[in-house]
Amino acid sequence: MTWITLTTDFGEGSHYVASMKGVIATIHPDAQVVDLSHSVPAQSVWDGAQALAAAAPWFPKGTIHVAVVDPGVGTSRRIVYAELGDWRFVLPDNGLLTSLAASYPPHRIVAIENPEHWLPDVSSTFHGRDIMAPVAAKLGLGLCPDTLGPPIDELVLLPEPRAERVGERIQGEVVEVDSFGNLITNITSSMLESAPRDESVQVLCDGHQTIGLFTAYGDQPEMTLIALVGSTERLELAIVNDSAAAMLGVTVGTPVEVVWG
Amino acid sequence: MTWITLTTDFGEGSHYVASMKGVIATIHPDAQVVDLSHSVPAQSVWDGAQALAAAAPWFPKGTIHVAVVDPGVGTSRRIVYAELGDWRFVLPDNGLLTSLAASYPPHRIVAIENPEHWLPDVSSTFHGRDIMAPVAAKLGLGLCPDTLGPPIDELVLLPEPRAERVGERIQGEVVEVDSFGNLITNITSSMLESAPRDESVQVLCDGHQTIGLFTAYGDQPEMTLIALVGSTERLELAIVNDSAAAMLGVTVGTPVEVVWG
Amino acid sequence: MTWITLTTDFGEGSHYVASMKGVIATIHPDAQVVDLSHSVPAQSVWDGAQALAAAAPWFPKGTIHVAVVDPGVGTSRRIVYAELGDWRFVLPDNGLLTSLAASYPPHRIVAIENPEHWLPDVSSTFHGRDIMAPVAAKLGLGLCPDTLGPPIDELVLLPEPRAERVGERIQGEVVEVDSFGNLITNITSSMLESAPRDESVQVLCDGHQTIGLFTAYGDQPEMTLIALVGSTERLELAIVNDSAAAMLGVTVGTPVEVVWG
Repeated sequence: MTWITLTTDFGEGSHYVASMKGVIATIHPDAQVVDLSHSVPAQSVWDGAQALAAAAPWFPKGTIHVAVVDPGVGTSRRIVYAELGDWRFVLPDNGLLTSLAASYPPHRIVAIENPEHWLPDVSSTFHGRDIMAPVAAKLGLGLCPDTLGPPIDELVLLPEPRAERVGERIQGEVVEVDSFGNLITNITSSMLESAPRDESVQVLCDGHQTIGLFTAYGDQPEMTLIALVGSTERLELAIVNDSAAAMLGVTVGTPVEVVWG
Repeated sequence: MTWITLTTDFGEGSHYVASMKGVIATIHPDAQVVDLSHSVPAQSVWDGAQALAAAAPWFPKGTIHVAVVDPGVGTSRRIVYAELGDWRFVLPDNGLLTSLAASYPPHRIVAIENPEHWLPDVSSTFHGRDIMAPVAAKLGLGLCPDTLGPPIDELVLLPEPRAERVGERIQGEVVEVDSFGNLITNITSSMLESAPRDESVQVLCDGHQTIGLFTAYGDQPEMTLIALVGSTERLELAIVNDSAAAMLGVTVGTPVEVVWG
Repeated sequence: MTWITLTTDFGEGSHYVASMKGVIATIHPDAQVVDLSHSVPAQSVWDGAQALAAAAPWFPKGTIHVAVVDPGVGTSRRIVYAELGDWRFVLPDNGLLTSLAASYPPHRIVAIENPEHWLPDVSSTFHGRDIMAPVAAKLGLGLCPDTLGPPIDELVLLPEPRAERVGERIQGEVVEVDSFGNLITNITSSMLESAPRDESVQVLCDGHQTIGLFTAYGDQPEMTLIALVGSTERLELAIVNDSAAAMLGVTVGTPVEVVWG
């Protein structure tokens, strides 16, 4: 069974996504194609990297994840095949694997340069359809990655903000706003292990403050600002039954601080 | 063939949906997973119940419908397996089956309490991925529902507004706004059987009025407010080729009255 | 293998789409159903025609494309089965094939009139679910199109704006705004063959002007207005890494002119 996922910034309902599915279906009719997300903000490689990091590891071993957030399409940027963890990736080499590579170091990277495996006519504006979709389909059929092009040593990675702990103070920032408007930070559950689970903990963000670390959204009344460790094992700020992003006017990059003691 | 549908309030394009699909694919690669809707307004159990009632009955006998509109995730609310009509459901026990249960009384309900069938690590914020997805996948593989937990007698149901007829007057209300902005009421086609199909019928809603009951949107000119029985056998108010919800500023809960004679 | 695609104006996440998938799954469990787009603007047959023209030809030979942009549902408009190129279509006869038919003349058209192949109860407001979905599923199972109804000679087509070249001047117009806000025109790459690839070429649209024809979005700095031939072989206007539609306030129907010499 071949699993192929698609992550793009084309928007839900874009017929460009359907074109890619048509190309895959034509080459590899038995492949199971799943949408990971098409709601990555246009040209935001960072947000594409967050979506891949959150969802790609839940897929079966061998899944081929295709990601097309590709502002450099048609210019000199590279397209690559990469293996990280148990999964395979086909995407422009522009930083889309930044967050995954921090947890799963790439163990094989190949530059996709051999046009033999592409569509016969390649546009200069849609390599997702003309190069990445056919390559993914053929990999699913058993094509050896070595035939795609030469091996390379390193992926392009974006600078990734690191949270830092000094004594009883952790400084991080918002790295993703999820579909509920929850503000997901780069402060991991392991960094919070020694923080007490009581009212001595304060979480500060953009002039707002909340006390304590909770475990569930429903632990506090509606419209309360709470901090908790979410389903991707990172600290997040949430408004119970509402959008923290909208209520606080906060976006990716805003500093978040946890202090106790 | 196993059919599993997913209904959530995660938003179209949420990578949380993709995580659930990855979990299902890993456990039961042959399951066919279909999106019922991910556009349920955040935390709106009522709207989730409407989506399930409208679409679930069109799926094959045995389909497993998973619904995750779950503001109480991680608190004491129960997760349940239920059989209604020819279909199976895996969802939080918070009222999501309110509208379906009115037509299809549950004939088996089981509390999902046995962690043996869940993912090994269960977060406190995403039981859709960690409990409901693996349970649905295993049910699709033939797992006996009795092993999930103890049987229970009743589902939690939301109060459901009932339309009432007194003589030549029916009073109901808007219960759903569909994706076209049509205002769907709780007045059923059978309640309207004795209403005449002529100009003596008036439909009133929030200060607006329309005369007669039509059968098709295109029966009147563009931008006309009309009343008709829609595809879920309930009276709806529509603006021909436009959104009645936007034009009239009407939402769920607004009273609607039909009078004749 | 049966491929069925769905194109509608129901909106992403509409449970009406799910109802159609349930009907197809019930009749033809092995059919592979793919969403082409559900983001066609409500009742816009023209935009539905653009989506079909862009994506339908990328699907395997024999794919059944079902399109439900159907403001006339329940009135006297016809539903048809048509064969164009290598693909089959089931849709209301209201112009949805206008753009495809220009490239692929229909070689068989049948009026869908025989209720034997429909659901037993047909609503007057949702023929996508009650007529088109079951007919598509049964065609996938091998039903002969001749049993659907009588052959007909011609499809309804919308007036299609034609670009015209006079000397060193081409006049066309915007025919589609894509999900990035790129303004796609009806000026084809073949019309532009004799235009020079240098700074003597000007492209004019609604008081805005850009010099030269580029090949990739990334050929110019962010926020620059550029003209290039896009992935559907037509001239488009784009703002690098932003939305030309939003920045220029331009919609479908706006004139575009290319001049040189």
